[in-house]
Amino acid sequence: MPGLPLVERGDDVAGIVAGALMAAALSVVDGDVIVVTSKLLSRAEGRFVELPRVEPSPRAVALAREVQKDPRAVELILRESVAVSRQAPGVLVVRHRLGFVVANAGIDASNAVPSDARPGSGPWALLLPEAPDASAAAIRARVEAASGARVGVVITDSFGRPFRLGTVGVAIGVSGLPPLWDRRGEADLFGRALENTITALADQVAAVADLVAGQASERRPVVLVRGLRFDPSEQGASTLLRGVDEDLYA
Amino acid sequence: MPGLPLVERGDDVAGIVAGALMAAALSVVDGDVIVVTSKLLSRAEGRFVELPRVEPSPRAVALAREVQKDPRAVELILRESVAVSRQAPGVLVVRHRLGFVVANAGIDASNAVPSDARPGSGPWALLLPEAPDASAAAIRARVEAASGARVGVVITDSFGRPFRLGTVGVAIGVSGLPPLWDRRGEADLFGRALENTITALADQVAAVADLVAGQASERRPVVLVRGLRFDPSEQGASTLLRGVDEDLYA
Repeated sequence: MPGLPLVERGDDVAGIVAGALMAAALSVVDGDVIVVTSKLLSRAEGRFVELPRVEPSPRAVALAREVQKDPRAVELILRESVAVSRQAPGVLVVRHRLGFVVANAGIDASNAVPSDARPGSGPWALLLPEAPDASAAAIRARVEAASGARVGVVITDSFGRPFRLGTVGVAIGVSGLPPLWDRRGEADLFGRALENTITALADQVAAVADLVAGQASERRPVVLVRGLRFDPSEQGASTLLRGVDEDLYA
Repeated sequence: MPGLPLVERGDDVAGIVAGALMAAALSVVDGDVIVVTSKLLSRAEGRFVELPRVEPSPRAVALAREVQKDPRAVELILRESVAVSRQAPGVLVVRHRLGFVVANAGIDASNAVPSDARPGSGPWALLLPEAPDASAAAIRARVEAASGARVGVVITDSFGRPFRLGTVGVAIGVSGLPPLWDRRGEADLFGRALENTITALADQVAAVADLVAGQASERRPVVLVRGLRFDPSEQGASTLLRGVDEDLYA
């Protein structure tokens, strides 16, 4: 989606997205999926934190020494998390309060400066959005009301992974699109039941959008994915999370 | 790509792919990426194994008892692996000889029957291709020779993941496309250096193709991805693997 403004604290993301779709003369149709980066939502929610204003707890100070990070950044990571998954020098992987296992609680310092920041302020950090499933639902409601079409909405972030290098887009908020697509009942080309065929549909949509947004000459935080077939769903992004008890790498 | 035949043992995959591109009247252009599923390659390489012909080792028998799997399947998994990463009832995650951490060594039983199988034979299993990077390079050379364009080729499989449910497409063979895309030198919208911006480009391309192929009404094992910008690369899929020493979840 071209033509989106830089989103600021207090902006109405659902209205901006719906307006941009209309302005782009793309009539939204049934089955369209609107993918929005977490960064856009975080900025609209004012999830900026100025590090000099953060008072690290004793636990954050001790952990920061162990992992050789800024104690104020570690304090923010701990506030956003329910558990530390792994730590090593320079690395702090946590289970985020939203359930995702992610490095640094998804807190980023790129594009993290509010446009009304005082000169000389910062450094700044930007936390993940408060409630991405609810934000996805709000955007979906607005787009559906404006268009009459049934759509899906995915809120994405870029996560690193165990075993493999580089980041990929993942879904941290979902509305309308089934997060998982269960094809186990279908037959293979020989009539045999398909195995291993629960696809992480919302994560793959997030990867597509991350690929497209990252390749745009300027970053484009909203991507329209057209041509998917899916049944409407009311499941959120937590559907994508493996329970801690069933996770061999927890 | 429509119109591909069911590939059989001994088929020339590079020739089939190049021919299908020509037949589809899609003139290949610079920057096109051709994505081929591992299953198609495995079938062409004749990587079928009939389980009744597998003699499980004592180690496979013991491990099969622990994880409650068929000892013949466990024998195949061990033969294809260099180490067991995690085991639990019903689950065997290994480091494949190609370096990837993957459940069941990527061995599949869907679409795993050779078309010349004797009636009553099987059950059959299909191993991952022998050398996916080399196969990607061969397909690339054939397509580039036929078209004059510079292209990328990605060989994909669908992997599960720690922490998250559902499978996603990942790259197990790469030629021409940089597996990782390093954007660290670029500036964010405020002129600050971007962080955390090594993107797993080939994995995201694999996710796109997995999404498209899975959504096709019949499976389409070859997908053409157009519109990416990348510099030619000679790196293979092992570029995507985190070293065991640096892997906090190894």
